[in-house]
Amino acid sequence: MANVAIVGSGFIGRAWAISFARAGHDVRMWDQSPAATGGARDYIAGVLGDPAANDLLRGQAIDAVLGRITVVAELVEALAGAVHIQENTPENLEVKREVFSLIDRLADPQTVIASSTSALLPSKFTDHLQGRYRCLVVHPINPPYLIPAAEVVPAPWTSAETVERTRAFLIDAGHAPLVMQRELDGFIMNRLQGALLEEAFRLVADGYASVEDVDIGIRDGLALRWSFMGPFETIDLNAPGGVRDYVERYQSIYSNIFPQMLRRVDWAGEVMKTVEADRRERLPRESLGERQVWRDRRLMALAAHKKKSDQEYGR
Amino acid sequence: MANVAIVGSGFIGRAWAISFARAGHDVRMWDQSPAATGGARDYIAGVLGDPAANDLLRGQAIDAVLGRITVVAELVEALAGAVHIQENTPENLEVKREVFSLIDRLADPQTVIASSTSALLPSKFTDHLQGRYRCLVVHPINPPYLIPAAEVVPAPWTSAETVERTRAFLIDAGHAPLVMQRELDGFIMNRLQGALLEEAFRLVADGYASVEDVDIGIRDGLALRWSFMGPFETIDLNAPGGVRDYVERYQSIYSNIFPQMLRRVDWAGEVMKTVEADRRERLPRESLGERQVWRDRRLMALAAHKKKSDQEYGR
Repeated sequence: MANVAIVGSGFIGRAWAISFARAGHDVRMWDQSPAATGGARDYIAGVLGDPAANDLLRGQAIDAVLGRITVVAELVEALAGAVHIQENTPENLEVKREVFSLIDRLADPQTVIASSTSALLPSKFTDHLQGRYRCLVVHPINPPYLIPAAEVVPAPWTSAETVERTRAFLIDAGHAPLVMQRELDGFIMNRLQGALLEEAFRLVADGYASVEDVDIGIRDGLALRWSFMGPFETIDLNAPGGVRDYVERYQSIYSNIFPQMLRRVDWAGEVMKTVEADRRERLPRESLGERQVWRDRRLMALAAHKKKSDQEYGR
Repeated sequence: MANVAIVGSGFIGRAWAISFARAGHDVRMWDQSPAATGGARDYIAGVLGDPAANDLLRGQAIDAVLGRITVVAELVEALAGAVHIQENTPENLEVKREVFSLIDRLADPQTVIASSTSALLPSKFTDHLQGRYRCLVVHPINPPYLIPAAEVVPAPWTSAETVERTRAFLIDAGHAPLVMQRELDGFIMNRLQGALLEEAFRLVADGYASVEDVDIGIRDGLALRWSFMGPFETIDLNAPGGVRDYVERYQSIYSNIFPQMLRRVDWAGEVMKTVEADRRERLPRESLGERQVWRDRRLMALAAHKKKSDQEYGR
């Protein structure tokens, strides 16, 4: 097992720490603000109870995982001997550029430097670096110790070896990497989510469906198959001759409605009154935190179910 | 419990029969082709084993459910005394118009007549009927005994009472109805699925992602939360202040990429070579049938998991 550095110990950095420590790595966390690292290990200790109860710590005790996470006072200590550095500072281009300059100067030349950014292209904050060949984005969905998918996004100058080592590192840690061929705004997952949300907001804005109808259609409908197959395998199994047969039979349904998808609704405009009223009626604002705890418990139970189902029926 | 009629006993009609019989209704199936009804009960008997093993028959034995399904030789027998008629004939407008004429003439004036069509608007095949006020679409995702969502789509002349009775009937049978305010091509679910697929095909056509990357991003990423919350609740919980806060923070990511979504890729064009090659490499054509059995087993296990998780953590 290897040394892994976490730079920036907010919510995302802490969640990555759990994922990498669970995989057996020695994780060193650093944050420029001592206040941020101060509560990090206690927070992680509190979080680990549920994954332990759901057998999602690879059979390890909480203390074994926690014992591999160290908070360090100096950035150089975190980086020393690390094979992988995961950066989690604020989504601000200037901050990223400075942090990457600093890390690139201090880290061994072979160390991969990955950013958790969800919105910034890697070329925008690594172009000036001597070691830009070993820089890229590894974008998780939160929290990464419960959601395997992570996007690997190379800049034009990221070496193939860096991409390949990152992919292998993630797979070894139990992740499911999506490896982009080249960078693109929104990466893959936010583009897919965005496409679906655009239509969801349009349907609500135009008065065809309620917010809850959309959620029912996904959570009690489409996402059931998607949650273990994805959208391409879903349509591949939805026609006798596979995906080509599906497209030949049904593409016209979709191409006929495409022209109605060219109009964008401002999500923060009139429609937000409807969306917010519906959501707040179902879940008062003061219950959001409690509901987030519920979401993570459900995610955990789902992860345990998928693991069991993978074993019983195959992936 | 009530009498329910199934008109058209192909795959969808049989699946509805299971759902309604499981709910305690007496189901009478009719098909204009005796060959279609001939194997229907044997088929259903074979299918019921898995839901029984996963405790998805509301605690009933297979024989109890099967005992409520009768194949009848005449349409009038099927319709006699039915509170709900579910029509499942081929997706052909002329066929639907004729079948609805026939049913409307024979059925009691208070009986709801619902079509399973996925593509035809109810106004297109009910406008000429005396009883058009009690006609509408109830579109399932297959198979409806494993996937709760069903779209309720009224024509302009469908009575509010018909919509309300249909909603109540579906909920009572364990379904999760999405009730559209008015008809629209693609209804809700195929529009949401289409929006996501358009972006998926574009990403593959443009060489940014592989088919498998898209499937990973959904099945190991986005669809995990969607499978128990839906997309609106997902974003509502993804910012400290709820959905409005989420949109204020992140809408620019999505509005920036929207202009790139105005171009449609022909799914059957060049990109299909890539999509089909990837899918057939992972799953040879001759294994599609076996994989469909796998899919239904996984769906069943997921349904059992969700039921348990609903009880343990709440919905």
